[in-house]
Amino acid sequence: MRTVHIALVHYPVLARDGSPSTSAITNLDIHDLARSARTYGCASYFLIHPIAAQRELVRKVCEHWTVGSSAERIPSRKLALALCTPTESLDSMIAALGGRDAIELWGTAARANRPVQSFPDARAQLQQPGKPVVLLFGTAWGLAESVFASFDAQLPPLHAAADTGFRHLSVRAACAITLDRLLG
Amino acid sequence: MRTVHIALVHYPVLARDGSPSTSAITNLDIHDLARSARTYGCASYFLIHPIAAQRELVRKVCEHWTVGSSAERIPSRKLALALCTPTESLDSMIAALGGRDAIELWGTAARANRPVQSFPDARAQLQQPGKPVVLLFGTAWGLAESVFASFDAQLPPLHAAADTGFRHLSVRAACAITLDRLLG
Repeated sequence: MRTVHIALVHYPVLARDGSPSTSAITNLDIHDLARSARTYGCASYFLIHPIAAQRELVRKVCEHWTVGSSAERIPSRKLALALCTPTESLDSMIAALGGRDAIELWGTAARANRPVQSFPDARAQLQQPGKPVVLLFGTAWGLAESVFASFDAQLPPLHAAADTGFRHLSVRAACAITLDRLLG
Repeated sequence: MRTVHIALVHYPVLARDGSPSTSAITNLDIHDLARSARTYGCASYFLIHPIAAQRELVRKVCEHWTVGSSAERIPSRKLALALCTPTESLDSMIAALGGRDAIELWGTAARANRPVQSFPDARAQLQQPGKPVVLLFGTAWGLAESVFASFDAQLPPLHAAADTGFRHLSVRAACAITLDRLLG
């Protein structure tokens, strides 16, 4: 079984008009993705943000739940938020994981912009020995096109069996479903 | 294919100490469950709250996104939030759907408190002709034990294949995963 990490990217992502952008940290993204990551046995949850004050916000929220007053009030949350690792960039995350050759990066997108590997194939790959995998999720209107070229694989867009054509899941929902399809 | 509705219950739910309680409306619950419901083709999304001011809050949020300024700014969100139906109680929801004999109620819980139907069975049932199904999700520490006795079925707790024992998904994640397992 391969090690799985998740990463929530706030830069580079797309703005509503398709231009490159930086999104703000959302409190419930910290909690929800951490809880999903903990449920599905992920090793860590990287929150990628280029602005130091936003990373500091993540640290303060996590501290409140891991050593602050809420750690005692709701102990289960501590186990989830302990996975959170704010970091500056994709590159700093890659360095923290031992360098680009030590890991695989798998992108996600609400619309397929290149060939994808199927969920059953991806699931089977995770059950074989291999490099740790980082599943990357974009905030705002999704990961900037520029980063996909450097990824090792891309997962398919999520939709119902009877496809409604609606492609606007929250990143909290998309991450949960992706982890369940791969590891559930 | 049977019609599927979802319902987010704010009363009766459990407080942290296991006592019956009423939880507050959470803005991102409105958005996230509506977006998941729309993605998976659900017919409606009931937000059950006994306090009129909280139902009014739901209506105002939805109005902002369906006919207010954000309806123009982010049109896709309109399609999701148009599914939101605030209602006073489980009984008022049941009445709106034609009465108890016209529908099936399927409960969800993070811990199984009675026999469950498997996800493959539940998925197969939804593909056969039959009554509309309402999937019920609890906020706070989950649906009060008292309501499960009146349900037609209960779905299994969600966890990874390699169960980590962690049972604290957000309701936003749990609803997304449940819809994907049943309809994805």
